[in-house]
Amino acid sequence: MTKSVILVSGGLDSAVTAAMAVASGPSAFLHVNYAQRTEARELMAFNDIADYYKVGKRLVVDISHLKEIGGSALTDERIEVPEGDLSRREIPVTYVPFRNAHLLSAAVSWAEVLGAKEVYIGAVEEDSSGYPDCRKDFFTAFGEAVTLGTRPGAGISIMTPLIDMRKSEIVRKGVELKAPLHLTWSCYRDPELACARCDSCLLRLRGFEGAGVKDPIPYRTPYRTTSNP
Amino acid sequence: MTKSVILVSGGLDSAVTAAMAVASGPSAFLHVNYAQRTEARELMAFNDIADYYKVGKRLVVDISHLKEIGGSALTDERIEVPEGDLSRREIPVTYVPFRNAHLLSAAVSWAEVLGAKEVYIGAVEEDSSGYPDCRKDFFTAFGEAVTLGTRPGAGISIMTPLIDMRKSEIVRKGVELKAPLHLTWSCYRDPELACARCDSCLLRLRGFEGAGVKDPIPYRTPYRTTSNP
Repeated sequence: MTKSVILVSGGLDSAVTAAMAVASGPSAFLHVNYAQRTEARELMAFNDIADYYKVGKRLVVDISHLKEIGGSALTDERIEVPEGDLSRREIPVTYVPFRNAHLLSAAVSWAEVLGAKEVYIGAVEEDSSGYPDCRKDFFTAFGEAVTLGTRPGAGISIMTPLIDMRKSEIVRKGVELKAPLHLTWSCYRDPELACARCDSCLLRLRGFEGAGVKDPIPYRTPYRTTSNP
Repeated sequence: MTKSVILVSGGLDSAVTAAMAVASGPSAFLHVNYAQRTEARELMAFNDIADYYKVGKRLVVDISHLKEIGGSALTDERIEVPEGDLSRREIPVTYVPFRNAHLLSAAVSWAEVLGAKEVYIGAVEEDSSGYPDCRKDFFTAFGEAVTLGTRPGAGISIMTPLIDMRKSEIVRKGVELKAPLHLTWSCYRDPELACARCDSCLLRLRGFEGAGVKDPIPYRTPYRTTSNP
């Protein structure tokens, strides 16, 4: 019996989401490769986190056609991942068009076959880069499509436990639940030493700083987390 | 400028949908390989139909993890595709869990990058096998998720022009629009001579019979279309 399918990218948010979900019952871990720049490092983090939680049921799904479709700095090498700017209002070039719908579709198909009732995704709306497919309203609408588009009685819910949390709260929650934050990877640009400059690093560092916790992963030095308040 | 992305499986319904969509503006054709039994034949039909309409913008997407996820006779060779029975009420074993969400996600991502405003899918609710992800309500809910999960102003609509049509009406519409019905393939089981026995063949044959039109593709003989009224 599998209670939940958890989307685990290998980043901070998915590790904390996994910590919350595995506490509630047997889980299956799903990782999606969309040919993003740092996929090899993220896949390593996925397996490390799954090992940490002794999860046997793992699936890695390849949707690298998102690279062919392009339109994002994460999948198109010709578009540079910019220095982060968390004060920016427009949607950043790292947005991968409608990506989360692909992730959720894979998780829901697997959940339906496994008989799992919950699909977890570590999306964050407030303290985020502002991707449209990270909005709470998107997940609500998608959940309605799941109810209507799966077998009667499948009863699969989309769970977004972090959606309203600040990054600092996520870090504190992770520490509280003993999530393996040291095994996670968030940087958009560098697979060995996190750059501390892209949006993803800035959001992560600001979260650790706000929580008063030292981030255990290696960064290029020096870095300043307060350069983009 | 691309006006629409059309999901073209290579079957009757998608060919008629394509005939309707290409008439309204420049289109891009998208085919999805989910490792179904007759994919090679369907891909050939896709390219034949795209050639017929002189469509240059084509994309073939591989989501063969649906085979790994399994749970359907179309993707799991251990589950036999049964003799059709259109009087059946339960969801048939050929249902591929939540498949249409994967198809739509790929089409929407591509549409967002191309700037296309319409995504066409040839789904049919009434005169169909009863798959939950072919229901009109599913497409309405998914369309809401598309509006919320893409860039503000992307303005992408999900178009299901066949959703309320009977198969015989679809055949008539195809003939009226000179859709290349002779290039299509619908059989779930056989890539060379359509079996005339699976649900997909039975629905197709009933449609041609109802329209009073001879189906131009080759079948194994003899067959009786009225065995399952």
